[in-house]
Amino acid sequence: MRLSLGEIAAKVGGVVRGDAARIISGVAPFERAGREEITLAGSAAYWNRIDQTAAGAVIVPPGVEIHGRDLIETATPQVAFTKLIRLFIGGHAPAPGISPQAVIGRHFFCGKSPCVSPGVVIADNVTIGDRVVLYPGVVIGEGVRLGSDVEIHANVTVRWGCIIGNRVIIQAGSVIGSDGFGYTRDGDLYLKITHSGIVRIDDDVEIGAVNTIDRATFDQTWIKSGVKTDNLVHIAHNVTVGENTIIVAQTAIAGSVTIGKNVILAGQAGIAGHLHIGDNAIIGPQAGIAKSVAAGDVVSGTPGMPHKLWLKAHSLITRLPSLNKRFRDMEKRLAELEKIAGEKRVE
Amino acid sequence: MRLSLGEIAAKVGGVVRGDAARIISGVAPFERAGREEITLAGSAAYWNRIDQTAAGAVIVPPGVEIHGRDLIETATPQVAFTKLIRLFIGGHAPAPGISPQAVIGRHFFCGKSPCVSPGVVIADNVTIGDRVVLYPGVVIGEGVRLGSDVEIHANVTVRWGCIIGNRVIIQAGSVIGSDGFGYTRDGDLYLKITHSGIVRIDDDVEIGAVNTIDRATFDQTWIKSGVKTDNLVHIAHNVTVGENTIIVAQTAIAGSVTIGKNVILAGQAGIAGHLHIGDNAIIGPQAGIAKSVAAGDVVSGTPGMPHKLWLKAHSLITRLPSLNKRFRDMEKRLAELEKIAGEKRVE
Amino acid sequence: MRLSLGEIAAKVGGVVRGDAARIISGVAPFERAGREEITLAGSAAYWNRIDQTAAGAVIVPPGVEIHGRDLIETATPQVAFTKLIRLFIGGHAPAPGISPQAVIGRHFFCGKSPCVSPGVVIADNVTIGDRVVLYPGVVIGEGVRLGSDVEIHANVTVRWGCIIGNRVIIQAGSVIGSDGFGYTRDGDLYLKITHSGIVRIDDDVEIGAVNTIDRATFDQTWIKSGVKTDNLVHIAHNVTVGENTIIVAQTAIAGSVTIGKNVILAGQAGIAGHLHIGDNAIIGPQAGIAKSVAAGDVVSGTPGMPHKLWLKAHSLITRLPSLNKRFRDMEKRLAELEKIAGEKRVE
Repeated sequence: MRLSLGEIAAKVGGVVRGDAARIISGVAPFERAGREEITLAGSAAYWNRIDQTAAGAVIVPPGVEIHGRDLIETATPQVAFTKLIRLFIGGHAPAPGISPQAVIGRHFFCGKSPCVSPGVVIADNVTIGDRVVLYPGVVIGEGVRLGSDVEIHANVTVRWGCIIGNRVIIQAGSVIGSDGFGYTRDGDLYLKITHSGIVRIDDDVEIGAVNTIDRATFDQTWIKSGVKTDNLVHIAHNVTVGENTIIVAQTAIAGSVTIGKNVILAGQAGIAGHLHIGDNAIIGPQAGIAKSVAAGDVVSGTPGMPHKLWLKAHSLITRLPSLNKRFRDMEKRLAELEKIAGEKRVE
Repeated sequence: MRLSLGEIAAKVGGVVRGDAARIISGVAPFERAGREEITLAGSAAYWNRIDQTAAGAVIVPPGVEIHGRDLIETATPQVAFTKLIRLFIGGHAPAPGISPQAVIGRHFFCGKSPCVSPGVVIADNVTIGDRVVLYPGVVIGEGVRLGSDVEIHANVTVRWGCIIGNRVIIQAGSVIGSDGFGYTRDGDLYLKITHSGIVRIDDDVEIGAVNTIDRATFDQTWIKSGVKTDNLVHIAHNVTVGENTIIVAQTAIAGSVTIGKNVILAGQAGIAGHLHIGDNAIIGPQAGIAKSVAAGDVVSGTPGMPHKLWLKAHSLITRLPSLNKRFRDMEKRLAELEKIAGEKRVE
Repeated sequence: MRLSLGEIAAKVGGVVRGDAARIISGVAPFERAGREEITLAGSAAYWNRIDQTAAGAVIVPPGVEIHGRDLIETATPQVAFTKLIRLFIGGHAPAPGISPQAVIGRHFFCGKSPCVSPGVVIADNVTIGDRVVLYPGVVIGEGVRLGSDVEIHANVTVRWGCIIGNRVIIQAGSVIGSDGFGYTRDGDLYLKITHSGIVRIDDDVEIGAVNTIDRATFDQTWIKSGVKTDNLVHIAHNVTVGENTIIVAQTAIAGSVTIGKNVILAGQAGIAGHLHIGDNAIIGPQAGIAKSVAAGDVVSGTPGMPHKLWLKAHSLITRLPSLNKRFRDMEKRLAELEKIAGEKRVE
């Protein structure tokens, strides 16, 4: 693709400063960009060393002066750059159409322009929207409904009854709708609780590679719109995750937890069952959360505590050996004083 | 399905109090149950607000009086309810038969009423019992033996030689029989140790979604009867897990560990190699176990310590900053006293 | 296979002490080996109880005397034993050839002696070397290149453009080249950053079961030669892992981390984004690394600290409750002394 800088500015909502007719054919990172490519200088760390890029054009925030380069000025340079990466580089969608080597069940309601790859298996009574892309090895259970512009990568399993919205992406190997981990003690044995609920995933969610999202006992496990999960995340039965929440790799959320909007769960965190994490809360990496967290709180550690307290407490942990020496020293000095005081009293 | 309350009572081993002829057509949670449905009121938290359910019938423990409702009285209400969920709601097994789109190796010994889905690949010399259900994308290696009533969900891999008992369920995406993580240092390089052992899974085990259970170096990695694992659990080579042990999500068990019966390993715990965890022990969430644990012990933290000690120690960690202030204050006061004592001595 | 002890010694670079003509037909662990099998006695713990093995021949280090057994003496007994396991027991490769039930894209460049199983799906423009083994359910994306003697287990996904060297093994269920977890904040929403880079895996790497290795934003995520990863490991976009580094199960490495050579990351460790871990460093189990680690350092804990300090600090954590009692006692005694000192002053 070849676009003029003027056309690019129009696409990203920016203003050209320089030669609007300059032709750009690609996008690249700062150090690697060439004469026909556009790059990003979103902060002084970049525009102060502009001679280290050969880029023909540079995206900058308003007010930045760079001599000898054609610029696109925008209030959101990172967003503009991200849009241009997608525009110039795009994805690698497999061939359109329904492969004769896919296996399709009865009563398949299929939207426009599907891409159903070889090795896909779709059970009965499945509905998919327009422009859905299913990579090889995807298994779709009975009665599943997918919205439009959904992209499901290879070897993903979506079990029966789950409902997935529009523009949802599921990375390879994930499992949506596995049975919840629920048993009733029956004497010495465990009796499996049938999980008859579903997983519901709303619009614009992205699920990372090899997540496991369990179906609800009744009702639904619910991932609300805009949620993004990283790889190897576990979400148990009956969990609700609020809008635009971010869940980093290897985090585990136990059953019936409710998580608010715009929450960030850092990597390898664990949330115990039945808790509530309020809107805009931030949970630190490897935190082990055993009590509900109020909206806006920042919590770290195991068990979780306010992040600022955790910083102080953990700095003191590293000083425990030296504190312990001073402590024993004080005990000796105190005993010495007590001895003196005793002598004086005796006097 | 429509059953009289009398028929239901017989199936769950309870006693009707009220109209044994009342027809019930479903089961539902307390708040959602309707006039033709039965629900559970297993504790006072429910039967004290019985007006909040519209259920036609209620399962209660012995001696509970609820006016105006037909009851089933049983000593194990939760078990009765769990059985009724399975009875009324059931599973969603795929179509019976061996799909022509499955790939079956030579010398396939197949029990009665198999359900082998499209996209299943079975290698040579495989034996399966009666009523085995294999979902799409399941890969069964050479010489594998499955018992009866086994249910293996989509995209599971069972590698060569593994032996799986009766009534075993494996959730989607799990890997049974991957090579153990074992290498011999050979100069600067690592030489892979061939893992010629197997994984053996006994009766009534349920493996969660996306577990990895490694085959033994020699002999077997052994998951004994009644074990239940949650999602994303890792079990290394040559591990033995005792009967009815529960392993919660994202726990990792290193090589050659032996775990007793009725143990509970909470979520994200880690057990170092070659340790023994005694019967009925409980390991806390995110615990890092570096020493063997005696039968019945409750251990938390990293490294693991008795749970009660851990509760106290961790509560003190959050108080370390304030303790540190008091500590420095004491040091000053002590120095002051020493000064006074010195002056007095000089006097 | 039947080999004389002399032939075996030649294959493993050892010296026969005893009957070089003795015939050996297998290899087995110490306790289980029979008269026609060879076993290992690599340390005194074994050779001091030699009567507990029935092995016909024993591998020992130089200078060990065992009466009544035929020995192979070698400076690296464990390496010799490992080689013999591979020789006698070998693997279980599926049938050679390209299965008619595999789906192969256009422009497939295929080396000698391929083994492409049923249910494999290969996209367009893929190149594979000699003796490549692809198990069922493997999905290979567009333009992927695999070297020779590569072995990819069932249900693995390798996405478009990734480059994999020679003698690489990927255990079942892993995902190579999933999108990195990168978003730009765009008002209230997150805008996905297209990841146009690849994953590059060099020679002699082994990837465990169900790893997730994300593709780079630009350029490459790079796993260098000889790296071995255990199961359920997460490696984020743009990470570089140096030669012969070992990564134990459930470890997570965040974006843009660089890891040196011969590093050991123990199980369930987490490395925060953009850090550097120096050559030969060792990171302890469950460690949470928030600062770069110098070459050769041994670091444990969350946040990470020198391992020796961590040992002392964590031993003190378990003593915090008793220290706290002594601390309160000291405060009382100190107050008492102050009272006495005050009285004396008043005098």
